[in-house]
Amino acid sequence: MSHNTFGHLFRVTTWGESHGPAIGCVVDGCPPLIALTEADIQPLLDLRKPGGSRFVTQRQEADQVRILSGVFDDGNGPVTTGTPISLMIENTDQRSKDYGEIARAFRPGHADYAYQAKYGVRDHRGGGRSSARETASRVAAGAVARKVLGETIRIRAGVVQLGPHRIADEALDFDAVYDNALFAASADVVPAWEAYLDGVRKAGSSIGAVVALEVTGVPAGWGAPLYAKLDAELASGLMSINAVKGVEIGAGFGAAELTGEDNADEMRLGDDGLPVFLSNRAGGVLGGISTGQPLTARVAFKPTSSILTLRQTINRDGAQVDLRTKGRHDPCVALRGVPVVEAMAAIVLADAMLRHRAQVG
Amino acid sequence: MSHNTFGHLFRVTTWGESHGPAIGCVVDGCPPLIALTEADIQPLLDLRKPGGSRFVTQRQEADQVRILSGVFDDGNGPVTTGTPISLMIENTDQRSKDYGEIARAFRPGHADYAYQAKYGVRDHRGGGRSSARETASRVAAGAVARKVLGETIRIRAGVVQLGPHRIADEALDFDAVYDNALFAASADVVPAWEAYLDGVRKAGSSIGAVVALEVTGVPAGWGAPLYAKLDAELASGLMSINAVKGVEIGAGFGAAELTGEDNADEMRLGDDGLPVFLSNRAGGVLGGISTGQPLTARVAFKPTSSILTLRQTINRDGAQVDLRTKGRHDPCVALRGVPVVEAMAAIVLADAMLRHRAQVG
Amino acid sequence: MSHNTFGHLFRVTTWGESHGPAIGCVVDGCPPLIALTEADIQPLLDLRKPGGSRFVTQRQEADQVRILSGVFDDGNGPVTTGTPISLMIENTDQRSKDYGEIARAFRPGHADYAYQAKYGVRDHRGGGRSSARETASRVAAGAVARKVLGETIRIRAGVVQLGPHRIADEALDFDAVYDNALFAASADVVPAWEAYLDGVRKAGSSIGAVVALEVTGVPAGWGAPLYAKLDAELASGLMSINAVKGVEIGAGFGAAELTGEDNADEMRLGDDGLPVFLSNRAGGVLGGISTGQPLTARVAFKPTSSILTLRQTINRDGAQVDLRTKGRHDPCVALRGVPVVEAMAAIVLADAMLRHRAQVG
Amino acid sequence: MSHNTFGHLFRVTTWGESHGPAIGCVVDGCPPLIALTEADIQPLLDLRKPGGSRFVTQRQEADQVRILSGVFDDGNGPVTTGTPISLMIENTDQRSKDYGEIARAFRPGHADYAYQAKYGVRDHRGGGRSSARETASRVAAGAVARKVLGETIRIRAGVVQLGPHRIADEALDFDAVYDNALFAASADVVPAWEAYLDGVRKAGSSIGAVVALEVTGVPAGWGAPLYAKLDAELASGLMSINAVKGVEIGAGFGAAELTGEDNADEMRLGDDGLPVFLSNRAGGVLGGISTGQPLTARVAFKPTSSILTLRQTINRDGAQVDLRTKGRHDPCVALRGVPVVEAMAAIVLADAMLRHRAQVG
Repeated sequence: MSHNTFGHLFRVTTWGESHGPAIGCVVDGCPPLIALTEADIQPLLDLRKPGGSRFVTQRQEADQVRILSGVFDDGNGPVTTGTPISLMIENTDQRSKDYGEIARAFRPGHADYAYQAKYGVRDHRGGGRSSARETASRVAAGAVARKVLGETIRIRAGVVQLGPHRIADEALDFDAVYDNALFAASADVVPAWEAYLDGVRKAGSSIGAVVALEVTGVPAGWGAPLYAKLDAELASGLMSINAVKGVEIGAGFGAAELTGEDNADEMRLGDDGLPVFLSNRAGGVLGGISTGQPLTARVAFKPTSSILTLRQTINRDGAQVDLRTKGRHDPCVALRGVPVVEAMAAIVLADAMLRHRAQVG
Repeated sequence: MSHNTFGHLFRVTTWGESHGPAIGCVVDGCPPLIALTEADIQPLLDLRKPGGSRFVTQRQEADQVRILSGVFDDGNGPVTTGTPISLMIENTDQRSKDYGEIARAFRPGHADYAYQAKYGVRDHRGGGRSSARETASRVAAGAVARKVLGETIRIRAGVVQLGPHRIADEALDFDAVYDNALFAASADVVPAWEAYLDGVRKAGSSIGAVVALEVTGVPAGWGAPLYAKLDAELASGLMSINAVKGVEIGAGFGAAELTGEDNADEMRLGDDGLPVFLSNRAGGVLGGISTGQPLTARVAFKPTSSILTLRQTINRDGAQVDLRTKGRHDPCVALRGVPVVEAMAAIVLADAMLRHRAQVG
Repeated sequence: MSHNTFGHLFRVTTWGESHGPAIGCVVDGCPPLIALTEADIQPLLDLRKPGGSRFVTQRQEADQVRILSGVFDDGNGPVTTGTPISLMIENTDQRSKDYGEIARAFRPGHADYAYQAKYGVRDHRGGGRSSARETASRVAAGAVARKVLGETIRIRAGVVQLGPHRIADEALDFDAVYDNALFAASADVVPAWEAYLDGVRKAGSSIGAVVALEVTGVPAGWGAPLYAKLDAELASGLMSINAVKGVEIGAGFGAAELTGEDNADEMRLGDDGLPVFLSNRAGGVLGGISTGQPLTARVAFKPTSSILTLRQTINRDGAQVDLRTKGRHDPCVALRGVPVVEAMAAIVLADAMLRHRAQVG
Repeated sequence: MSHNTFGHLFRVTTWGESHGPAIGCVVDGCPPLIALTEADIQPLLDLRKPGGSRFVTQRQEADQVRILSGVFDDGNGPVTTGTPISLMIENTDQRSKDYGEIARAFRPGHADYAYQAKYGVRDHRGGGRSSARETASRVAAGAVARKVLGETIRIRAGVVQLGPHRIADEALDFDAVYDNALFAASADVVPAWEAYLDGVRKAGSSIGAVVALEVTGVPAGWGAPLYAKLDAELASGLMSINAVKGVEIGAGFGAAELTGEDNADEMRLGDDGLPVFLSNRAGGVLGGISTGQPLTARVAFKPTSSILTLRQTINRDGAQVDLRTKGRHDPCVALRGVPVVEAMAAIVLADAMLRHRAQVG
């Protein structure tokens, strides 16, 4: 992917810094005649909005999206016109403050040092471009992608592991995700997880997590050899999300322990003449091309690097300093990552749909 | 990435099927004046060559590479000219045989069904385009990439897990990798692993594995926000390798269990005034940009899908059949994946180097 | 180029419709540490602003540009940070009116029918996406490109032919361009041309023109074989400007009448040891690569299609209608095309500079 | 376009030097199930083959194409499989000779100096990468593109101006092109043109020419705003051909002299309910999108730079020398450019077809 653009035909270019006047994106290549208003986007943005519960950053953002182009109402309601859709979200809670030490010191685990080493300059305010705030643009673009994909494709994600605590595969329930403040893919774990995360939060610490993704309704045939494999594109899109350190498809790392007999999904014919797979170790992708089975993936998020504990680091002046990252942070950044994982999956799939249609018709 | 092209500035386009007359690639965008002959490429190809030991496919291939363009000797030895480098490897062991059932049946775990569903046609001979044979082209291109990167960047990979058997982190020794037929990153495990893999092989079965990657010498600053992150590009490149089902960077999925205190790598100043990181959970990448620490990743390979056990499947005629995949196969496809992982890392890094130079000079 | 994005490394994505709330662009891949404020952009925008003279559309637009991202002041004045630069220009004069017949009829010479045929919908207000208004975004992005290129590269364009009236090559004076309302590359022709164009304007008609481009200071070596040739990229960029129907480099179509002796520019050595070309038929490009000579090109603009004369056409309802395009129009769209030609040249060259630096260092 | 790759979805990557072992290309993104054999490609290659008449270079090349991948015969004849099609043409007439002075001197009008300035090295043998020999790869790829486009789209080109001699628009006859050695688009001019070009040839000189292109059968709707305009893509593709210095669409530079009344093509309804344009000044493209009218363009070729007259130049050693380019050359390079213009048009259109299908379905 090129710089700040993701996708080949369904292309999303995002821009904006955490504490600039606004963030946004341009969605280009969208098919025409798709009904689209801000009301299609806002609910998804609200899901990842800061300030929603005690488990997410207390920054207050309305995250109100505006469509600036690419949609026109010719009498039958607003539809996409096939031209670029510009989406903008103003930053409303850029607290004016003295960034003090943060402006010069490199926060451990953050992109501060890497940006400075690359560019020789960085917008230090709230993480600038490397802030998780950018993911709002992804969610907005993902909302458009979902409209392109249509109703038959269902994209769902949820937290399946919070630190050491895991949801068993058989207990996984994506319907529960948006009914709890932890985005957990099981209602049963919520009380215990809330207690656990309250402890983390009160200690001024943070914790990592794993988000699972499941997409149903993808027809067989999407994706392409060899470098545009559907799983490679998905890996690229998911790994590009802030704080993600691992991506696996289907059995993933578990496949390393499987024998050929256990791993290869056998096939039978269904009543409708379509293939029925007897298992889904492949996670819905073989040879980089979808098989018609549910697409499954898992994404590992590292813990938020901003914590209250004093940490050793260095600063731009070449001095060693001890730093405590005060401010409004997520105790588990993966939580608000759930709608972002869904959004990136939607963007990857919308692009794959158009690319498939281009080559095969 | 686009279809069969990988990379933005250092671009590799591969072509060819397992049983066609040849396979090959075009390496475009290579800087000029780099000394290059077939002797720079052949040794790396020989590492992944079929027929090298009892643990890899018994197909006999010379895998002799030819440079067809892009290199010129103006009196001081052959150097790259900045124009496309065309590399070709002829297929010499395309056994003429009756593919029989395989021509119509979809082998479980293989790309057969997905290709047929997408294209309505597939070259069934030896897996056609989806054969691991294509990885020879990647290794050849990777050899060119290594020349671009130069001597200070060292790229090494090795098998660190074979089925249930793992090498402890502290025992990891990349120097051992090319001294044993298992490409294991520790000499100590070799006898036990050989016995284990012999058992798998004799049972006509196969097993998955994990390959670790370590790259030293990458300066701070390579990679770029947000969709061209170095780790996202690496994830894309590694996930595109045949049989790969998972990629993790640094602490990877382990990061999901870490607290912020344990995860964020603290920094001190070294004697040379450069930062010294006290740990490397980040795997050498923060915010998608290299930090100067070793780049570390792990890649999960599924077991070879071709096994001798009879398996249930369907065929193109809409019938249910039982299939046994005879032929010459790798009991653990990850073994020969080691040079391929190194090659893809080299290609990703050569591209990142050029992209960084473009923007920052 | 992809959809609405131009460039490979220095990438410009534009968005917006003539009568939407705003237009704008995202400039991605800009090198860091370049001083940039709105004051670097606004003067160039003002050059092509509507309402500037009686020879351009009377639409009143402030064309005030805002930088929304990618620039940061770390104490030494605002500089680019290497992240995407989002530029926005609000549309202030979107007259609320009844588009009446225009909403359904296809104006001859306009993109109306083509857009409708492609997308099944179009924003008919003022031409929507196909309006020359979009070129404001190009000029804004071009201003950034000029900063990337630096002072030594000088980009100048001017009108050299207005309808049947031509400026002789030996009379060409780019210094005169921004001193007359016709953007003519010679002060001498201005009185006669003004009289001529007044006649055209008062007749409710329009006329075509040719714009010449000259860029000095481009070093030898930019551009690349074979599909990224500097002249091919320039042709693509210039042909993408509204109303452009032809592009020629150096001698251009005149080269068709030259013999080999007259066409090939001979070379001698200058006092500084650098080559001196004895002529510049090549227009500064050989084999798609710059030679260090001035880059010269000429661009043909068709006349504005909106005229007061009644014209035959059809509408969306499948009826034949006669149409007169009322409204505020340019009698010669090429005039305001001059800053746009300069801007596209700047964008092409900034991209070529970064690409060259990437490959050759 | 990127380096040596042309196209976005229908992608052509060419490689090879004039005097290397072979040249070729990889055609990626081709739709599957299209019947394709070498017999579909060879006749088009034969059209531009050296040695065909006294008006083209006397180099003897069989120009025999081989398909190395991407085509498979599953019982119903060879068809494309959707995977990369690798095409190779061996160079058979690379005369072993002493290049002598040419190896060091920069031939005026050639790319020699520009390549040397860029790369610091160049394959001087026969022009290396900048040789017109590369256009054989384009013709081969264009043959595949034609198969993708199908029979209803007819692509024809022909020489319409040879030096000062022009064919009147009303005399233009594309059917005559391949029946005369001059590729002239009129049988009537052939005797006079042959006499003229014989004079040029015998004088050891060369002459420029203009090639016209006409494509019929392109449906309305191909192409896209704003940087992927069909005419911009065509301009890029045609300008990338060796020796091309100008491209115009429809009325082209002539549009600069037209009034709005004369330029804008009026529309009426045909009996079939489809629009009928009363003229075609637009050349079949409005707003960058095809209108369903014939696509028309004209391409200016400069004269061959290799001539027998002694010319002033410099060499790599920083000396001024006088140079005569001996060898086998085309007195008018545009002649063999005719099939190349057709090929590039086919490649641009195949790409546009797939891109249109992707977005609009």
